[in-house]
Amino acid sequence: MKKMINIGLIGTGRLGSMYAEFLVQRVPQANLVAVADLIPERAKTVAEKFDIPNWYDSHRGVNCDPQVDAVVITATTSNHKEIVIDTAREGKPIFCEKPMTLSLDDAREMKQAVTTAGVFYQQGYMRRFDKGFSAVKRKIDEGVIGTPVVFRGSSRDPFLPELNYLLPENSGGQILDMAIHDFDIARWYMGDIRSIYAVGGVLAFPEVESTGDTDNVVMAFTFQSGALGEVDISRNGVYGYDIRAEVLGTKGTLKAGYLRDTPILVMTKEGVTHDVVPYFPERFCEAYVTQLNDYLNNLSNETDPLITIDDGISGLQVAVAATDSLKKGAAVNVAGY
Amino acid sequence: MKKMINIGLIGTGRLGSMYAEFLVQRVPQANLVAVADLIPERAKTVAEKFDIPNWYDSHRGVNCDPQVDAVVITATTSNHKEIVIDTAREGKPIFCEKPMTLSLDDAREMKQAVTTAGVFYQQGYMRRFDKGFSAVKRKIDEGVIGTPVVFRGSSRDPFLPELNYLLPENSGGQILDMAIHDFDIARWYMGDIRSIYAVGGVLAFPEVESTGDTDNVVMAFTFQSGALGEVDISRNGVYGYDIRAEVLGTKGTLKAGYLRDTPILVMTKEGVTHDVVPYFPERFCEAYVTQLNDYLNNLSNETDPLITIDDGISGLQVAVAATDSLKKGAAVNVAGY
Amino acid sequence: MKKMINIGLIGTGRLGSMYAEFLVQRVPQANLVAVADLIPERAKTVAEKFDIPNWYDSHRGVNCDPQVDAVVITATTSNHKEIVIDTAREGKPIFCEKPMTLSLDDAREMKQAVTTAGVFYQQGYMRRFDKGFSAVKRKIDEGVIGTPVVFRGSSRDPFLPELNYLLPENSGGQILDMAIHDFDIARWYMGDIRSIYAVGGVLAFPEVESTGDTDNVVMAFTFQSGALGEVDISRNGVYGYDIRAEVLGTKGTLKAGYLRDTPILVMTKEGVTHDVVPYFPERFCEAYVTQLNDYLNNLSNETDPLITIDDGISGLQVAVAATDSLKKGAAVNVAGY
Amino acid sequence: MKKMINIGLIGTGRLGSMYAEFLVQRVPQANLVAVADLIPERAKTVAEKFDIPNWYDSHRGVNCDPQVDAVVITATTSNHKEIVIDTAREGKPIFCEKPMTLSLDDAREMKQAVTTAGVFYQQGYMRRFDKGFSAVKRKIDEGVIGTPVVFRGSSRDPFLPELNYLLPENSGGQILDMAIHDFDIARWYMGDIRSIYAVGGVLAFPEVESTGDTDNVVMAFTFQSGALGEVDISRNGVYGYDIRAEVLGTKGTLKAGYLRDTPILVMTKEGVTHDVVPYFPERFCEAYVTQLNDYLNNLSNETDPLITIDDGISGLQVAVAATDSLKKGAAVNVAGY
Repeated sequence: MKKMINIGLIGTGRLGSMYAEFLVQRVPQANLVAVADLIPERAKTVAEKFDIPNWYDSHRGVNCDPQVDAVVITATTSNHKEIVIDTAREGKPIFCEKPMTLSLDDAREMKQAVTTAGVFYQQGYMRRFDKGFSAVKRKIDEGVIGTPVVFRGSSRDPFLPELNYLLPENSGGQILDMAIHDFDIARWYMGDIRSIYAVGGVLAFPEVESTGDTDNVVMAFTFQSGALGEVDISRNGVYGYDIRAEVLGTKGTLKAGYLRDTPILVMTKEGVTHDVVPYFPERFCEAYVTQLNDYLNNLSNETDPLITIDDGISGLQVAVAATDSLKKGAAVNVAGY
Repeated sequence: MKKMINIGLIGTGRLGSMYAEFLVQRVPQANLVAVADLIPERAKTVAEKFDIPNWYDSHRGVNCDPQVDAVVITATTSNHKEIVIDTAREGKPIFCEKPMTLSLDDAREMKQAVTTAGVFYQQGYMRRFDKGFSAVKRKIDEGVIGTPVVFRGSSRDPFLPELNYLLPENSGGQILDMAIHDFDIARWYMGDIRSIYAVGGVLAFPEVESTGDTDNVVMAFTFQSGALGEVDISRNGVYGYDIRAEVLGTKGTLKAGYLRDTPILVMTKEGVTHDVVPYFPERFCEAYVTQLNDYLNNLSNETDPLITIDDGISGLQVAVAATDSLKKGAAVNVAGY
Repeated sequence: MKKMINIGLIGTGRLGSMYAEFLVQRVPQANLVAVADLIPERAKTVAEKFDIPNWYDSHRGVNCDPQVDAVVITATTSNHKEIVIDTAREGKPIFCEKPMTLSLDDAREMKQAVTTAGVFYQQGYMRRFDKGFSAVKRKIDEGVIGTPVVFRGSSRDPFLPELNYLLPENSGGQILDMAIHDFDIARWYMGDIRSIYAVGGVLAFPEVESTGDTDNVVMAFTFQSGALGEVDISRNGVYGYDIRAEVLGTKGTLKAGYLRDTPILVMTKEGVTHDVVPYFPERFCEAYVTQLNDYLNNLSNETDPLITIDDGISGLQVAVAATDSLKKGAAVNVAGY
Repeated sequence: MKKMINIGLIGTGRLGSMYAEFLVQRVPQANLVAVADLIPERAKTVAEKFDIPNWYDSHRGVNCDPQVDAVVITATTSNHKEIVIDTAREGKPIFCEKPMTLSLDDAREMKQAVTTAGVFYQQGYMRRFDKGFSAVKRKIDEGVIGTPVVFRGSSRDPFLPELNYLLPENSGGQILDMAIHDFDIARWYMGDIRSIYAVGGVLAFPEVESTGDTDNVVMAFTFQSGALGEVDISRNGVYGYDIRAEVLGTKGTLKAGYLRDTPILVMTKEGVTHDVVPYFPERFCEAYVTQLNDYLNNLSNETDPLITIDDGISGLQVAVAATDSLKKGAAVNVAGY
């Protein structure tokens, strides 16, 4: 068996507790030895549930825990900057959930700290570890569709998060919260994005008006290569969690994504029906597990991460540019951000 | 049986000869009595093939033929203006293929002539008569998806037309040639379009450069209602004729379109495969026939057309605006055109 | 244009009037000059609807009409024998709908009359002219699935016919009425059938008990080649008209059939839904038209029919054997019938 | 956290090592403390790989290990009888993989031992724990399709096992080896099976002749309720692991099964293609894990198993009857076995 790595997990909210379970049960090389959360009860509950020796009410507890070999960050995005910088200073390897942070200045500071400390940093974007999205990448690289010329992405959530979450200071706005995944996949498949135009509005949930955010946005963009892209994001995918990507090339097209959860068809006088994927844990459970295993493999084998801190910054840059385009009502150059 | 209507068909190229066959074999109320084409051999060949009594080398022949009760125009787009104006002056009902014409000034002159003459005018857009696209409209009207908020359309042709056809003076450019269908469907489902942004390029067929046209374009737009839209068009749908539309509403989503031609699945070690719809005659044959039957029903029953001359002008206006946006690299207001 | 052939149509019930419409509107080479029906009003109505010059109250009227070049028989099955024998004696080419007749003795008499008269006879089985079923045949012949080893067929009707129709003397029983199509397709793909076992019952519609017929039957059989087959037939395909065939070979499998009528997907909180093919006219309309065109082509070109009188007899023989197996509760050899 | 249960695993071949991994990593309540295999190296390798304290070269080692609370049997089928009887005598709860054993006499002896000892016995049939197959059961129970009247099952393996495995004394023959799953699902959905008819042959792999086994079998059967069934099994599902079930009822039909492994569609000039599920570990991994969790839950909560020893016997009885029908070429009554 491979050498076990002692993990400290920072942030034990909804996603953090899922990660705790994955680290304990599905990542053979991981030994989850410490968890931290600003809400101490959350950290304690998770620690007890999974027999984790130590829990703390601050990321510093995990950082300073001498047992901890490597850190996984699933805290609130607005705290990523401080946690990453502190962890880097402690010289511990970092896995940080998306989005990296909410502002480009912060992101650049984080990179500086990571570079100065010389620590390993892996940016989280689980879609790249999904069987479907990674098969598309492989087929592109194999030349199955010739030269890719158009990217199309959709991200639709089945329900509105709490309004508080939508405040730009918490989520960074809908584009940064949702489309950053599509931008990362788009960049992975087709390279950097040059210019972008976004239009959006509050079209489905009037209560979103009060937050200053949108609930639907469509975007058209160009890649550095001249290739073209489109992404639409929506809070009202009320029929199910619908995440798609398509790449049209000169010799064919590739489509990733599916809606069906249970492999059963119901046929009655009302028609032919199947169910849908309810939400992200059902859709991307395997991808999260694969991503965590990949992080530990990289640490063991001293291999580079698939997604670097620069990928984190570049995805954020596109999201910031698109958000600005939305405000200005005009196309913008991504390089200017 | 209903009263027969004597039809004169102007334009007997590829689409015109298909129409001749439909009028003879699939439109019970139609009696095709005359055809015209600027290339007389084409008119003659069609006339002989279908036992049509009269053929002419100019639309004026059809217009002046006293037997002709109503006219169907499938001539080259650049000749639509002259033919429509002349036919209107002869007081004959008009069915005119899309696009109506290549410039908004021409379109407005055509409307003037039609209005002055008080003749019936039906704009051709066969997609509205397709089982799939019309089922989407019906479901929207029934409220199945609540309020529509995002429209997504794709039009992909399986191969490049002759370069000569791509010259802006012939086709009006890729947007006008292809996306005008998507705009018509978008307007039908969700009302008028307010602003539009287009980006495109020559990405698949370098030879298109010489024509000044594009081979791929993506567009993001807003409707008057505030709803959002996206359309992508491509000349390199090399895998098959791929025409789709999706409408996301507050309660669900509707998708029209399909790729499968033959209802057979082939499963071997290479995977599970099915074929695709080769091109528009296979995909929209029934829709063309339904549209022609609808035209004759409207004439018999003195009912208004589903698609008016104003729909022709409005679709063209969006296409002209989008083409201008493509040139300017900026979003434009449709009303300014 | 090809030489027109004057057709006399015998039987103008539900299917017969569909055929009248097809012959008038979709079979360019056909000139429908006479119709006959034992219910004279039916013949008259069809004649008036389609401007057919002559109508008769007996097949003899059509047979003796000197204008009639060729006959199409869509009369009640129990009258096929008399009509075919009489038509053969008049020396006119025959297209006869399935099933050929209800008893093997009758079928053999019919063959004798046709052979003696030396007239052209084409057995109707429209499935062979369906795009899907014929694509399967083509793929088998191309070797795509290696050697075919298992055939699976399903025929499910969306509702129960009138009870009177179910009486064995009218329909020949459920197997003869429904599975004869599956047997014909099975034989086409894989050769003659050697032995068969059938079990069935009245499982969905208690009122069928009174007729002595079944409403569901499943059958397992062997081909002469040693290959295996299964067919299930049902009167309670209440969800839609569901006709399928699958051929498993040594290198893959082929599946024909589909349920979707309109190319639209509806996605709401209730799941993802599409509609179904309602009944045979929607499913096989094109196949009927193709079959009629094929008949006329065979007459013009003096080519042999795809489906011969021997195919009619062989399919019937399997159906008779299966019906006997159902009664006996034991497997039977087809050759013994 | 729930009380942990110490598990002893007997049999560490292909399936047994999968089970070891599941018990260690995916079944939170399980504590795998001992493994046994007649090939000691296999037991040792698995023990070392998963840090399992004890390993033995015989099931008796596990049975007598005082640490072991409960047993999981994944040994060769021909050893099931001895292992189950010995384990029952030790008074330990038993989970036993399918098929229970190869002869009905043995099965009845096993039941006697289990009953006498009063130990818990859960028969393994992972399909009942699959999301798709269990959703079908739920929908039937909810009345979605009315009364079930026809069952259709298919089990197709993507390649031939080693010839040695096919010898009747090892696998019990193809029906017992493969169709026993279909019979269990059929019985779960629709009750006991009354009579059965099987035909089969060596159609794809001539080398199977030497074993006396078949490579393809089709079966038609009746349930006690009068309902009907069909199952086909094949060793030449060379295109992928294809496991399906369909239940036709008086109000609709339900279909379980799927072929697609990766959610990606590839569309090129060659058509639209997707991949397939390669084999059972990919298809039923989740079902195995769910089944093992269910076993431990039953032990903790003292609940009855979903699949009892009588289900094990009844499924075997149908398989034995079908195998006999295959030999005799005649339908047989299941009760007579």
